[in-house]
Amino acid sequence: MSLPALSRILGLLAVGILLLAHTSEALPQPKAAWVRGARSRLAKNSKWHSKRWTNGSACVETSPPDFSAPKENVWSGLTNWEAASVTQWLFGQAELNLTKSEDAGEWDNSLLLVELMLPNKTDVLSYVDGAAAAPVRYAHVVLDLRATLNPTYTDIIVGPLPVVNGTTCWEPLEYPYTRKTQGSIRNLDADSDSLYTEYIFKVTATIADITMDLWGGTALGMDNDTLDVWGLDPVWQYDNKLTRWDTFWNYPTDVFDSETLLPLGLYFKSDVTGRDPSKWKLEGWLYNDIFYKTTAEFRKAYWGGNFTKLGANVDGDWARTDQNGPTLPMDTATPPRAVAPSGARYSVDHARKYVEWMDFSFYMGFTRDAGLALYDIRYKGQRIIYELSLQEALAHYAGNDPVQSGTSYLDTYYGFGPYAFELVPGYDCPAYATFVNTSFFVSETTHTHLNSVCLFEFDADYPIQAHTSASYTSKTKNIYFTVRSVATVGNYDYMFSYEFYLDGSIKVQVRASGYIQSAYYANNKDYGYQIHDFLSGSMHDHVLNFKADLDILGTDNTMELTTNVPVTESYVWSDHPRNTMKLKRSFIESEDEGKILYTGNGRTQYRVVNTAQPNKFGEYRGYRILPSDGTIHLTVENSSNLVNAANWAKFDLMVTKQKDTEPRSAHPYNGQDVANPVVDFDKFFDGESLTQEDLVVWFNLGMHHVPHTGDLPNTVFTTAHSGVEFMPINYFDGDVSRQTVNMVRIDYKDGNVSHVKTFGQNEATCSVDLSKEDFDMYSYKGDVVIRKFPYDPADPYYETDAIV
Amino acid sequence: MSLPALSRILGLLAVGILLLAHTSEALPQPKAAWVRGARSRLAKNSKWHSKRWTNGSACVETSPPDFSAPKENVWSGLTNWEAASVTQWLFGQAELNLTKSEDAGEWDNSLLLVELMLPNKTDVLSYVDGAAAAPVRYAHVVLDLRATLNPTYTDIIVGPLPVVNGTTCWEPLEYPYTRKTQGSIRNLDADSDSLYTEYIFKVTATIADITMDLWGGTALGMDNDTLDVWGLDPVWQYDNKLTRWDTFWNYPTDVFDSETLLPLGLYFKSDVTGRDPSKWKLEGWLYNDIFYKTTAEFRKAYWGGNFTKLGANVDGDWARTDQNGPTLPMDTATPPRAVAPSGARYSVDHARKYVEWMDFSFYMGFTRDAGLALYDIRYKGQRIIYELSLQEALAHYAGNDPVQSGTSYLDTYYGFGPYAFELVPGYDCPAYATFVNTSFFVSETTHTHLNSVCLFEFDADYPIQAHTSASYTSKTKNIYFTVRSVATVGNYDYMFSYEFYLDGSIKVQVRASGYIQSAYYANNKDYGYQIHDFLSGSMHDHVLNFKADLDILGTDNTMELTTNVPVTESYVWSDHPRNTMKLKRSFIESEDEGKILYTGNGRTQYRVVNTAQPNKFGEYRGYRILPSDGTIHLTVENSSNLVNAANWAKFDLMVTKQKDTEPRSAHPYNGQDVANPVVDFDKFFDGESLTQEDLVVWFNLGMHHVPHTGDLPNTVFTTAHSGVEFMPINYFDGDVSRQTVNMVRIDYKDGNVSHVKTFGQNEATCSVDLSKEDFDMYSYKGDVVIRKFPYDPADPYYETDAIV
Repeated sequence: MSLPALSRILGLLAVGILLLAHTSEALPQPKAAWVRGARSRLAKNSKWHSKRWTNGSACVETSPPDFSAPKENVWSGLTNWEAASVTQWLFGQAELNLTKSEDAGEWDNSLLLVELMLPNKTDVLSYVDGAAAAPVRYAHVVLDLRATLNPTYTDIIVGPLPVVNGTTCWEPLEYPYTRKTQGSIRNLDADSDSLYTEYIFKVTATIADITMDLWGGTALGMDNDTLDVWGLDPVWQYDNKLTRWDTFWNYPTDVFDSETLLPLGLYFKSDVTGRDPSKWKLEGWLYNDIFYKTTAEFRKAYWGGNFTKLGANVDGDWARTDQNGPTLPMDTATPPRAVAPSGARYSVDHARKYVEWMDFSFYMGFTRDAGLALYDIRYKGQRIIYELSLQEALAHYAGNDPVQSGTSYLDTYYGFGPYAFELVPGYDCPAYATFVNTSFFVSETTHTHLNSVCLFEFDADYPIQAHTSASYTSKTKNIYFTVRSVATVGNYDYMFSYEFYLDGSIKVQVRASGYIQSAYYANNKDYGYQIHDFLSGSMHDHVLNFKADLDILGTDNTMELTTNVPVTESYVWSDHPRNTMKLKRSFIESEDEGKILYTGNGRTQYRVVNTAQPNKFGEYRGYRILPSDGTIHLTVENSSNLVNAANWAKFDLMVTKQKDTEPRSAHPYNGQDVANPVVDFDKFFDGESLTQEDLVVWFNLGMHHVPHTGDLPNTVFTTAHSGVEFMPINYFDGDVSRQTVNMVRIDYKDGNVSHVKTFGQNEATCSVDLSKEDFDMYSYKGDVVIRKFPYDPADPYYETDAIV
Repeated sequence: MSLPALSRILGLLAVGILLLAHTSEALPQPKAAWVRGARSRLAKNSKWHSKRWTNGSACVETSPPDFSAPKENVWSGLTNWEAASVTQWLFGQAELNLTKSEDAGEWDNSLLLVELMLPNKTDVLSYVDGAAAAPVRYAHVVLDLRATLNPTYTDIIVGPLPVVNGTTCWEPLEYPYTRKTQGSIRNLDADSDSLYTEYIFKVTATIADITMDLWGGTALGMDNDTLDVWGLDPVWQYDNKLTRWDTFWNYPTDVFDSETLLPLGLYFKSDVTGRDPSKWKLEGWLYNDIFYKTTAEFRKAYWGGNFTKLGANVDGDWARTDQNGPTLPMDTATPPRAVAPSGARYSVDHARKYVEWMDFSFYMGFTRDAGLALYDIRYKGQRIIYELSLQEALAHYAGNDPVQSGTSYLDTYYGFGPYAFELVPGYDCPAYATFVNTSFFVSETTHTHLNSVCLFEFDADYPIQAHTSASYTSKTKNIYFTVRSVATVGNYDYMFSYEFYLDGSIKVQVRASGYIQSAYYANNKDYGYQIHDFLSGSMHDHVLNFKADLDILGTDNTMELTTNVPVTESYVWSDHPRNTMKLKRSFIESEDEGKILYTGNGRTQYRVVNTAQPNKFGEYRGYRILPSDGTIHLTVENSSNLVNAANWAKFDLMVTKQKDTEPRSAHPYNGQDVANPVVDFDKFFDGESLTQEDLVVWFNLGMHHVPHTGDLPNTVFTTAHSGVEFMPINYFDGDVSRQTVNMVRIDYKDGNVSHVKTFGQNEATCSVDLSKEDFDMYSYKGDVVIRKFPYDPADPYYETDAIV
């Protein structure tokens, strides 16, 4: 994610439907925090009934039936009312000295985020598994405290909810973090918006003649600027100072987001220590691998007559995603597509964000930092995974220039939630998918992204089972269910898919598309391929960390490893020792063994089992974690950029004991103090026993990305792919996909078919009208801002979750 | 593949439509071997034109247009006429002393196989790339020479074709094999059909009282046998003798092919050296890990009063693939499926087995040994891969019993071609797929498997490209093309899919379903999980070797490796050395470096490039070989079973110089002499330079399979999966998927959509009648025998490829 790309995206957040309320009186109290209007309207517990077509007629597609989750969703976020009332209450706390975000300057305190404080697992289990009341709710709030020489980002907790003056209070949030500093971390961005932009234009003005000569343009903060300037992330934090490197980029000349393909190869270094911009200073220029300590030195060299001028990367069709090139044979004919003749075969409680499909069920959560998460994933009534969620996404670059070398984006800083935009039916998901909205409350504003999560069943292009013998053939359809969101964090588009299969497996898949961040190509053959005129496909590692809190038949679990090993073995029945192989079984005994690099040749099975509840054959029931495409860890060792900010990136699979104090492996502000980040994942490992304990598995997906010409204009999802599968192993007595009716058995004898069994499946003999599934592209919405602080008690909106 | 399973499948080959011709006069000559009736009828070179629906009406699905390949398919096999005439001619060669297969006994010579001798690449290129004539055609014939004390399988070559008495001759085939024995290898199976079966029943009769007592049944060769007996493969070949181990299995009690799930745990050892069955002798019994040297010793122990009797594995629903268990919620409603509103958007020359899809083109070949292969795969007119073909599939078991420990199936021995049965539309492939027949000529009989290869386009459940910015969103459909066949080799069903993508990528995917071969569970916890009453999911490695003869801009190619490495580096612009990463580029210089184990952490790119034709930026154009799921090599080192018979299984990726004398890494009779097999792959490696040479890449797919309860009754395709991708890297100037029109761009401004671009794509507004795509399951055919030797010159069939 690049900063200007971010700021352009943020521009989007200012548009949309804006309904302002103008009163700030005391907030009325609902009867209970749990009573939500929309929920109570939807929670009819009605039984699903399919309307079926008759032969020859149009297929009747049913929507997911009205349906009520068995429990409230304790992870789905604050109600609008809760968020508004917390905001209101916080503005009443004089000691916080808050200014409304839209009015706040560099020296004001403001409110960045109000969201649900995710409840502790230990508090939730007695509710979702038992008869206990739901845990008391709290809000998690992030303050941007800049009215000080030492600005901080500060996490606090507010509650209990609902807000009641006198009983509700706030306190610093510290227990979920390894850094014990009352929830505060220094804010290195305090002055980055306007003051640092001013500083940059002052610097670039000093060489406007050079930029004009080199590239025919300037970066002066004027409307006719053709150049943009931005640089590394996170800022350098050593030698007791803060150092930035910035570089020039050509602005795109069309609508396309191609700026990250247009680097120009001139870099400058700035000491930006402290909050007094007058003390910030330029420390040198870099061009063509030559470092000039001062602007004067650079100017002298440039105009000296012997300066080697390199070319510019200029926008063009090569950098644009529109159709380009001759039409492919027959491509204007409509291609195949998936249809759903009977509509939805799953149930969705939209209010509670709860889904059931073929004996699977789960709740959805959604946060500003990490977007979509799944909770309490059950299969046949038993929880398999308590939490399955993205933790952080790292993009670690390298290069011979300081901007690429210094770039290690930690994307929760920008947040996945704000960039999970509306999905396009027929493209991002099948046209018949069910779409769900997502909301987040930042800077006193509720944002809703319509249709930003999709749910759909799909018929894979291959069956799940097949066998043919001399007398019959048996085949079973591979129908699976997917939950998906796509987040565009600046230049990159991440697609997150959670897939559920009839054999009880669950797959997590990440795909990447969008624009690469490229490097200027000069003397950097060791850091990427040259992919355009003066362009290097800057090498970088994507590493995405996920949390999978598995619960196999309860929370007392163990990780068992089963490894295929070559052996030379003697047997009572053999005259000679034999070269063969065996299984070696072992356990991860404690956190000291909890950091795992996948063994070579895929020879180890990683299984979370419950050793106290073996199956009837004495084997441990469990789920295997099966790496699929592109499961990698970070190439860089002891990264100068990251120090301790992403210690989860060093291994493939990590196992820890579940603790309420270690809910997340990362923190969005870890980059603010890389040596001493808010969450240092290494500190989770303190030698605790992992034998029959509540285990959390942290796994990495990712890709060593060395962009090539095929990444222009965009990386393609097909090859930029990484996934992990959770598959039942000795968990059931047999393959549970045998339950589906969507199978066929054909018996034959003497060359003729004697019998066909279809097991009660419904044969589709109706017609699907494809025009019915057409999506009106003109209704597409990026971001909808539905209410802004302050709160109007007369506004019925706050009592409901209804979305415009 | 187990022997009884095989013999049951072979039973299928005896059914079907059987049209016998009864004359054996001299064969008439066609004008040229290339003139095939069906081909000339189809070769109209007609231009494709799509009939389009109008709004609201029914979609009009077009078939693939009549279409003519640019060249003849020199790999597609013999014509019926050629095969028949070669057979006729061979029966006229007195020195071969051939007996018709159906009449042949253990001491007769017979004809196993007549097929096309695949032409040498060096002979083909001048034809497919230039104006030269097609290579002269020859037949490859396998003789089963058993009229001798030292029976052999013998490969010969017959030609030139067409057969002309006087000019056509035969000679031993030796040049494609590393073993130089005139194409002959000993035949260890010469007496296995009836004589060894007789021997087995003599042995089992001696303990009929015990089998009756233990399992309530006998194996006596009677109709009421409840027990089957078979054992290891390949036979033990050391200490100057041949040793077999066999074991008892319960027969299934229903139609299902569940025998490999019903082992009984009693084993016996036989010395079967030589061709005189009277000299074969029993060498002992094994039960519950106790070895008894004689039957008397075993009987004495068994009836002695202190014998531990273990239980039996008994057939039941647990071993059957039919629907089982409660119906899943809503599962009787019709699930989603793919439809093709405009029908086929690709061209197929059925006669030449040639396909074009979106600038990809290829020819299909099909052999008895390895089934489907693709040749001359081109993209945008340039060949990418000369040959992409399965070579061999190994299933290497291990166990504490001699049958499991001694089993290492080399499946081309059984052959993939004969077991590639008809596909079931809507299950194996989408209902709208194009289906192609396959044929093979064995034992003087032409077999045709109807609809045994499918071709289809599919819309993946995710796009190939996506990017969203503050002002637009851009998405491109991921339409791909698949060629598929499924081969059931005994208990296992292998699905082979070759997928073509809009970005120029090609994926090879193998999935496995069907029945596992299990082990009796006794004292073998180190060799698998206990998965049923007395059943072990016997551990085994599947390793499948493929040949990919890449040609990147011609045949002069080099394999370049690019590896991400961590480094500590100093830079002119940095005060401190930095911990970061770099690319290390290197080449595979010669065959001495040609055996490759994939590096850990996926950190190396393996690329076949042409260093003589860099792109305009100086980067080498090429294709990357990208391992995906489950790319493994064999766990066992120096396998006692295999010795030298599968040396290709020891590595992940192997590179050799292309030689006409090294066309295949394996031979179906490698198991007949494992120490000195027909093709010893290690001998391909003789230090030759691989710098700008014609390279062949041999890669392995596979799976360490440790079956668990979820493999009962069948393994599922979803998790038993392995794949490799060939992706263009710096091959084009940009991403070629930009050519498709099936993309959308939505522009927005101030919260409203300002413009939608659809690039000339056709919006489907018609209705798809799903009943039209229904497949009549009662028309399913396993195997169709269409003509048997001898040949009737009046039969017009032999002049055409027309299929019943």
